[in-house]
Amino acid sequence: MDSILVVGSVALDSVKTPKGESSEALGGSAVYFSLAARLFAKVQLLGVVGTDFPAVHRRMLQSREVDLSGLQAVSGKTFRWAGKYAKDMNSAKTLDTQLNVFEKFKPVLSRAQKASPVVFLANIDPDLQWEVLAQMERPKLVACDTMNYWISSKKPQLKELLSRVDVFFINEEEARKLTGESNNCRAARMIAGWGPSVVVVKKGEHGALLWAGGKLHAFPAFPVETVKDPTGAGDSFAGGFLGYLTSVGGSTDVRHVKRAMLYGCVAASFNVEDFSTRMLEDLSIDAVRERYRDFLELLTVEEGELVS
Amino acid sequence: MDSILVVGSVALDSVKTPKGESSEALGGSAVYFSLAARLFAKVQLLGVVGTDFPAVHRRMLQSREVDLSGLQAVSGKTFRWAGKYAKDMNSAKTLDTQLNVFEKFKPVLSRAQKASPVVFLANIDPDLQWEVLAQMERPKLVACDTMNYWISSKKPQLKELLSRVDVFFINEEEARKLTGESNNCRAARMIAGWGPSVVVVKKGEHGALLWAGGKLHAFPAFPVETVKDPTGAGDSFAGGFLGYLTSVGGSTDVRHVKRAMLYGCVAASFNVEDFSTRMLEDLSIDAVRERYRDFLELLTVEEGELVS
Repeated sequence: MDSILVVGSVALDSVKTPKGESSEALGGSAVYFSLAARLFAKVQLLGVVGTDFPAVHRRMLQSREVDLSGLQAVSGKTFRWAGKYAKDMNSAKTLDTQLNVFEKFKPVLSRAQKASPVVFLANIDPDLQWEVLAQMERPKLVACDTMNYWISSKKPQLKELLSRVDVFFINEEEARKLTGESNNCRAARMIAGWGPSVVVVKKGEHGALLWAGGKLHAFPAFPVETVKDPTGAGDSFAGGFLGYLTSVGGSTDVRHVKRAMLYGCVAASFNVEDFSTRMLEDLSIDAVRERYRDFLELLTVEEGELVS
Repeated sequence: MDSILVVGSVALDSVKTPKGESSEALGGSAVYFSLAARLFAKVQLLGVVGTDFPAVHRRMLQSREVDLSGLQAVSGKTFRWAGKYAKDMNSAKTLDTQLNVFEKFKPVLSRAQKASPVVFLANIDPDLQWEVLAQMERPKLVACDTMNYWISSKKPQLKELLSRVDVFFINEEEARKLTGESNNCRAARMIAGWGPSVVVVKKGEHGALLWAGGKLHAFPAFPVETVKDPTGAGDSFAGGFLGYLTSVGGSTDVRHVKRAMLYGCVAASFNVEDFSTRMLEDLSIDAVRERYRDFLELLTVEEGELVS
């Protein structure tokens, strides 16, 4: 089983949605990613928590075979995020962010981590993303995400990073901000011009655009009737996507990348059905495979000629 | 070649978008629909214009084989609509609506129109939609669209109409308003419970949800990099969709309906590439077929087993 290294946040999230709320529940980009990717590959998590991080979360992740040897525990409080989703659940309003121990986080990679063939740089400071990448030996596949805050404050560093990235995930609002282009298709093409051979423009419940193999593709989301908490949808998408690509040797062949899109959508579709990481904790690869087949069937349009 | 009857507006539209503007250009739901559907089927247009309706538009439609024997010309001014699209082009702000001759429109069907096997009731007053339907002999396929205005003012009539409708088109905002349900998937299912075996929830550039064959399907839009004017996208979608279904004998078999979704998306994708009806006027079935094949290729994900 090939391995994937993820660097990102490990958080305690407080979330309100029209379907309920959670308080100081397990969250963070590296956590959502790991819980989805571990179904496909060996996951090594690089991050930091404070002394207040509940042991029960650590045990849960370990029992799901997530390698936590890169999870630093330092004195201080764990990163916290609080947010609220409006009725249509399409975007969160951040109510509070406390960086806490994350503020002074310095990723230091072990030999095994440096040798990982696939690395996912979740939406942290581009300078930290660089620091991780610089320590890697020669990854076969480098993937990266970002967020509005870094596009505003560190656009030059981010664009420089992109020249070293194979797969870039970004949501549509961020893509507009990064490129100044209001058409998602043009934005994806422009970003691909800066380096990544694969660009995924995520659109939440509306699916995603994909630039791969030198052209544009479009995917709907897997239709979900019960959405309780969209937090972590993008990171679990990346986990399914990159987990699958890791399982096929880090290939970015367009046939594999299209399958990866479906695995990403499937992982995200499970994640949003309950709060925090509840769905992902109990998710099995068999359940993923079953929904993947359903999704494939939904997408399949049999060829047929016009009668007239 | 089977025939399809459409009743709807014939308009002079003034539109502003970030890419330019048009003034008193040809528009209206029945016009956009007809220009797309005529590539697949014989189209009979039922509507009304005033004495100011330019003869050049009438000649253009006739030269595209749209049967205008049901287009009444009465004294007064033609229906006018003015609207403006913001940067993301996803929704129009109506600046002005002048019903004019449309206010007293009474559809009267000829023998040939009554016998049409397929009918599309575009987004006009539900009472008028009823009047047309009541005159039909025994249509094989009844399709219908609506808009916010009628959902607010004539919801009971609309819901009663739906019990007689096979295919219902509605956009996501309207679907929320009609059902009170903020999840598009649940809204589609609820509407299907009121009668239509096929429900299409349109989402503009984000594609559409489809309820058909007793379950939900999701489709992306065909990715378009140059969007100049989204006016008429929904009606040209319906034209491609129902034109195709008419060409296969009015079938609502799910295999046909899924193909119809692609033909609808393709017709709409051409329409938005220029102002007014310019793209549809010159569109050929060969160009439609070519983009259909491209779209099918984009959507195709080859099956493949997990390695791990």
